[in-house]
Amino acid sequence: MSDEVGFITMAGERATGEAPEIGVGMLGYAFMGKAHTNAFKKIPYMVYPPPAIPKLVAICGRNEEAVREAAKRYGYQRYTTDWKDLIRDENIQLFDNGGPNDAHAEPSIAAAQAGKHILCEKPLARNAREAAQMLEAVEKTGVVHMVAHNYRFVPAIRLAYDLIRSGQLGEIYHFRAVYLQEWIMDPNFPFVWRLDKNVSGSGALGDLGSHIIDLARFLVGEPRKVSALAKTFIKQRPVPGGGTGEVTVDDAFVATVEFENGAIGTLEASRFCAGRKNHQVIEINGSKGTLVFNLERFNELEVFWKDEQPRETQGFHNVLVSESYHPFWKHWWPQGHIIGWEHTFVHEIAHLLDCIVNHKPVAPFGATFEDGYKNAVICDAILQSAEQEKTIYIRY
Amino acid sequence: MSDEVGFITMAGERATGEAPEIGVGMLGYAFMGKAHTNAFKKIPYMVYPPPAIPKLVAICGRNEEAVREAAKRYGYQRYTTDWKDLIRDENIQLFDNGGPNDAHAEPSIAAAQAGKHILCEKPLARNAREAAQMLEAVEKTGVVHMVAHNYRFVPAIRLAYDLIRSGQLGEIYHFRAVYLQEWIMDPNFPFVWRLDKNVSGSGALGDLGSHIIDLARFLVGEPRKVSALAKTFIKQRPVPGGGTGEVTVDDAFVATVEFENGAIGTLEASRFCAGRKNHQVIEINGSKGTLVFNLERFNELEVFWKDEQPRETQGFHNVLVSESYHPFWKHWWPQGHIIGWEHTFVHEIAHLLDCIVNHKPVAPFGATFEDGYKNAVICDAILQSAEQEKTIYIRY
Amino acid sequence: MSDEVGFITMAGERATGEAPEIGVGMLGYAFMGKAHTNAFKKIPYMVYPPPAIPKLVAICGRNEEAVREAAKRYGYQRYTTDWKDLIRDENIQLFDNGGPNDAHAEPSIAAAQAGKHILCEKPLARNAREAAQMLEAVEKTGVVHMVAHNYRFVPAIRLAYDLIRSGQLGEIYHFRAVYLQEWIMDPNFPFVWRLDKNVSGSGALGDLGSHIIDLARFLVGEPRKVSALAKTFIKQRPVPGGGTGEVTVDDAFVATVEFENGAIGTLEASRFCAGRKNHQVIEINGSKGTLVFNLERFNELEVFWKDEQPRETQGFHNVLVSESYHPFWKHWWPQGHIIGWEHTFVHEIAHLLDCIVNHKPVAPFGATFEDGYKNAVICDAILQSAEQEKTIYIRY
Amino acid sequence: MSDEVGFITMAGERATGEAPEIGVGMLGYAFMGKAHTNAFKKIPYMVYPPPAIPKLVAICGRNEEAVREAAKRYGYQRYTTDWKDLIRDENIQLFDNGGPNDAHAEPSIAAAQAGKHILCEKPLARNAREAAQMLEAVEKTGVVHMVAHNYRFVPAIRLAYDLIRSGQLGEIYHFRAVYLQEWIMDPNFPFVWRLDKNVSGSGALGDLGSHIIDLARFLVGEPRKVSALAKTFIKQRPVPGGGTGEVTVDDAFVATVEFENGAIGTLEASRFCAGRKNHQVIEINGSKGTLVFNLERFNELEVFWKDEQPRETQGFHNVLVSESYHPFWKHWWPQGHIIGWEHTFVHEIAHLLDCIVNHKPVAPFGATFEDGYKNAVICDAILQSAEQEKTIYIRY
Repeated sequence: MSDEVGFITMAGERATGEAPEIGVGMLGYAFMGKAHTNAFKKIPYMVYPPPAIPKLVAICGRNEEAVREAAKRYGYQRYTTDWKDLIRDENIQLFDNGGPNDAHAEPSIAAAQAGKHILCEKPLARNAREAAQMLEAVEKTGVVHMVAHNYRFVPAIRLAYDLIRSGQLGEIYHFRAVYLQEWIMDPNFPFVWRLDKNVSGSGALGDLGSHIIDLARFLVGEPRKVSALAKTFIKQRPVPGGGTGEVTVDDAFVATVEFENGAIGTLEASRFCAGRKNHQVIEINGSKGTLVFNLERFNELEVFWKDEQPRETQGFHNVLVSESYHPFWKHWWPQGHIIGWEHTFVHEIAHLLDCIVNHKPVAPFGATFEDGYKNAVICDAILQSAEQEKTIYIRY
Repeated sequence: MSDEVGFITMAGERATGEAPEIGVGMLGYAFMGKAHTNAFKKIPYMVYPPPAIPKLVAICGRNEEAVREAAKRYGYQRYTTDWKDLIRDENIQLFDNGGPNDAHAEPSIAAAQAGKHILCEKPLARNAREAAQMLEAVEKTGVVHMVAHNYRFVPAIRLAYDLIRSGQLGEIYHFRAVYLQEWIMDPNFPFVWRLDKNVSGSGALGDLGSHIIDLARFLVGEPRKVSALAKTFIKQRPVPGGGTGEVTVDDAFVATVEFENGAIGTLEASRFCAGRKNHQVIEINGSKGTLVFNLERFNELEVFWKDEQPRETQGFHNVLVSESYHPFWKHWWPQGHIIGWEHTFVHEIAHLLDCIVNHKPVAPFGATFEDGYKNAVICDAILQSAEQEKTIYIRY
Repeated sequence: MSDEVGFITMAGERATGEAPEIGVGMLGYAFMGKAHTNAFKKIPYMVYPPPAIPKLVAICGRNEEAVREAAKRYGYQRYTTDWKDLIRDENIQLFDNGGPNDAHAEPSIAAAQAGKHILCEKPLARNAREAAQMLEAVEKTGVVHMVAHNYRFVPAIRLAYDLIRSGQLGEIYHFRAVYLQEWIMDPNFPFVWRLDKNVSGSGALGDLGSHIIDLARFLVGEPRKVSALAKTFIKQRPVPGGGTGEVTVDDAFVATVEFENGAIGTLEASRFCAGRKNHQVIEINGSKGTLVFNLERFNELEVFWKDEQPRETQGFHNVLVSESYHPFWKHWWPQGHIIGWEHTFVHEIAHLLDCIVNHKPVAPFGATFEDGYKNAVICDAILQSAEQEKTIYIRY
Repeated sequence: MSDEVGFITMAGERATGEAPEIGVGMLGYAFMGKAHTNAFKKIPYMVYPPPAIPKLVAICGRNEEAVREAAKRYGYQRYTTDWKDLIRDENIQLFDNGGPNDAHAEPSIAAAQAGKHILCEKPLARNAREAAQMLEAVEKTGVVHMVAHNYRFVPAIRLAYDLIRSGQLGEIYHFRAVYLQEWIMDPNFPFVWRLDKNVSGSGALGDLGSHIIDLARFLVGEPRKVSALAKTFIKQRPVPGGGTGEVTVDDAFVATVEFENGAIGTLEASRFCAGRKNHQVIEINGSKGTLVFNLERFNELEVFWKDEQPRETQGFHNVLVSESYHPFWKHWWPQGHIIGWEHTFVHEIAHLLDCIVNHKPVAPFGATFEDGYKNAVICDAILQSAEQEKTIYIRY
């Protein structure tokens, strides 16, 4: 591993006693609220010494009873059902937007205008236009901004990044990625917000596809053009309480992609793959080797070195990415004592805090709103290609 | 497994003593000549009782010294350097065309006209036009014709076919297939016939892609439309003896595909994937389950059943396809005593002999020249899509 | 999964506001101090509603500077370098002994006598005699006692337990377990306390072997007899600061075992297996199926059902143990969003708190001091067998 | 790979036209008769140029109708029901003993006395005493002798041998091997000769255990002592036609072993492991790395190199042992076009023919009757240890 690449040090040089507090306002108390809050609570003793101490100021959600319980559960000082309340709160320096996709733009823009740093869940917005407005807002106000593309913070993915960026993989020929799940295969699965284009923007594309698009850009570079198919397998779903709702988003998409650097590849996401629980698999073939990552085997990276000696024992290495010298692992346990999905948020938010406190750039290790905007442009191009049945060139 | 589907019985009902001889004329003595001949020699004692006894009449190749040695090695009664010699030989009932792609059409058409049954290596032809001529010839003369898409005869693939065709996998949503190799990654790898469009028709597409296109049609059905990218990473190669040759075929292609039945998928083949030796991986997701096959783990099929009980132990089954009740396995060994790549030809050619002798249809278990023609149409559409940057609808 | 077996509910019925606090005194601030403290901190918001709220009263260690920093890092109210200080503290109800093996007996016995509940790291003691004294102390004083055999709290292991105890695996024929690591292979690895019999009692046996012995008893039942070999590959090690120390413990052991129920098996642990980071692999063969667990693939359980239909797709199921209906998973994330090694302690300590607060038995889900004693008897028998070269019958 | 070790060249230097014929007399027409005959038939064109051309002179079995059919099927010139007929036949130079275990000694000794070279299936004999007589006979008469321990001829096993013998794996610390099958788990499985000690000598031990004992000796060296348990789970079995038979052999055994070179390990075989079809798994840990082989994934070898650079990508290599430079692979197909179980016999018998014709030693690549005798001594020691509940030292 070349020194030029190095591995991130998330904690600054200051001793812990001096670590500043950063007030957090959390929008959303469900899946992402839980995952982010867990990270805020673990950073002070796990990423040690921590770059900053997150102070849980307030949590916001639409259901008052639920958000009250969440505040108690997670230890937020107070709760609110009005996100503008978070924006007005001067004790909050970091606005964490874990709301549904249609609640990303307005609150985030308001937070930026109020001078708050922002962590926004992915996809950044429902489409490129909305994302552009958000990017404009944070650039204008100069706040620190990050999109929660947490898979950049999987140790195996960071290791892949280091291996590619240091040139060890050589010229990149191929990138292929799938992100497959199964959770809406049952026709009786209800019509939820994620299936409504007005709320979510898109389906498997924005939810799952945006992750692998981000990793494509992170690991390989900018795409030049895409060509895609999108599909809605089940078009009507029962609405809880009665009636049916029309599914207006894609259940799945497939795309071919060519990158600026000449690599070609495929992108695919689906929620109709029986047995695939959280099956994000990425393979990258370079002139010097190959890398394969499977999110369900989070702690492993498969690596093939083309010119390895002795040649008799060449083969894919199953690397258990858990050594003290592996990315992020100095914070954790002895080798082989594996970590899990939730740990990505600890790494991600620690990086964000480090950037805020120590005035470091969020990119390239973290995804910025600019990354979120570009991601949205690519998502839009995929839908456009599927509709027009032709190749679409990416124009940011 | 439903009785309606059943498993092929390759041997007819007659006892072995009565098995007729079928004279074989083999064009090609290298890779495919060896693989086919091995099958001819094993059928009489392995597929027992055999439907017919192949009689090795003559072998043909351009290099006289080599073909003489091959005749001796394999036990052909005679050799020739002129394929027309095979056509003229009345002792030959089966013409086996294992020559390079530009030697498929003319000899096969001549063989058909001479009333010989034909086994032709894949891809059937260099393009759809040539394939159409070959199809026309065999249809006109009524000979038995087969394209050597041997992967239909992998036990795990036949099992997959049975599971799909019996409805056990439900409605098919996705088909994704890659066929990845690495053997021309070295820029010093020479300019060989497979890299010359005039001889081969296409590159990874016809060589590897035609296999997964055949399996797509075999397992899922007809494609409606494709969209593709093709790439030549290394455009000049050294010619043995001096100078360089221009690589006029694809090193790799990627494509999206939609099938007539509504399934969507991806197809990809490349010879630039470090570490991938013979990595044909196919995944099919249906409404009731998922199947995954990896050619490098030939004897295994991964199967997921969505509604399996008890649900606590649902998961991908690693099926070691080697039981006496599995396709083709009654001919082989006790369970777990695995077979290999060469065995596909034993199954394939035994099926062909059975069809010839017992007047059974080659399809659907085997690929006919009609399958070879349709395959060529799809290959042409992929290249056309890559060139025109738009979706191409398949028109046979 | 039969209802009779069920899955543990770790949280009691009371609402969170009423959850009592339990004062914790932690002995040890290193590896285990960190792992246990992390669990204490996560239970209030992850195991929700929590059975009790751990209150971090005091932490103890021999190095004052280090323990002061640990108290600050983890949020303990105070620190001390004298474990007796913890015993005297009336705010401490739970004494958590994460010290080295020679610090298990005396402090734990003192804690019991002071009426404190005890969680003690494994192995419970350096030998059976010492363990017996500890068991006697807790039984006499009636405190709640638990040995931190955390692997009982891996979701996949609990699932295995449920499958076995419900009879779904049938009669058990075989248990084979290895626990392999590599961390002292380098001859220059220093002489540390774990290599000194006076401090540790034994080597790989007590450290790693005690885990698989516990799982053998948990999953299969009591062993009747053992026969073993033990080995020290490197007998002298450098002492930091100068000189060498004599390694007085086993680097590895292998044993055969017969259980009371007639099953036979093997047990093995080693610290000399290159590439094996934390390789605890267990296989259990019953008359109805087989289970396989690999700690490095913590979230997976391999399951084979002998009489499964259709038989054509029988095979080992790779179960991703991460569904909401899987053991412990209601506390965590959507399926496929995997957890890691540290989570075992959350489950384990939540169970202990539930037992303390709701007067439930620690066994059979958790290991008690009685389990710790029996484990020590088996360890002693293994060493005795290795020395005497004969089978030793287990006598508790 | 060091030159000193090299890879076997099975074919001699002579051209094929000059290859001498060797007349074969085959005892047994079932499982092993089929596997050996297939090898005899493939060698002339696959192992090319062949060291000798096997001539199928006669085949012998007790059931006249079956052996007549076998002769026709496989192309033996004649058949007989009396093995002495093979011994008397001057056209037979190689006596291939594929009969049941109680038919190994007398015919083999007679063959040796008649000056015939001998290939005998494993286990060589029912016990060490019988094996000693066989060894004495072949040594006295000077015939070439080999025991069909075919797994020495798996390419991955030969590669493992080369890596160990060249010193690349360093000092050997551990050898662990299991050979697990499931085929007699059903209590209604009938009482067959393999379950009758008079015929078979032992059960899983001689059938499966002898294979891993042979590989232990081949790969690691001589064992110094063993300690074992043996078990018969189902003691009475139905006899076809009526009544029950008493199973007088082991259904399974487990053993610990120490080698002369200080390595320790475990050996286990069972026919009661649900889902394990032909699960022979061997792991060897040395001071420089680790090797793992799984017979069900015959074409793969897992290799870990302890000091490999860069350390960030250390991990188990999954070596697909199918390159032209891998052992035996020059005879086969392009890389990744895998071979199977039956190919071991091709390699094994080609080696034997090479030894006969070119006066080369069968050992160390092949197992001799001396190896068969030592194997029997170890098997006897395992049974003795199980009975006497103590460690038994190996005395040849």
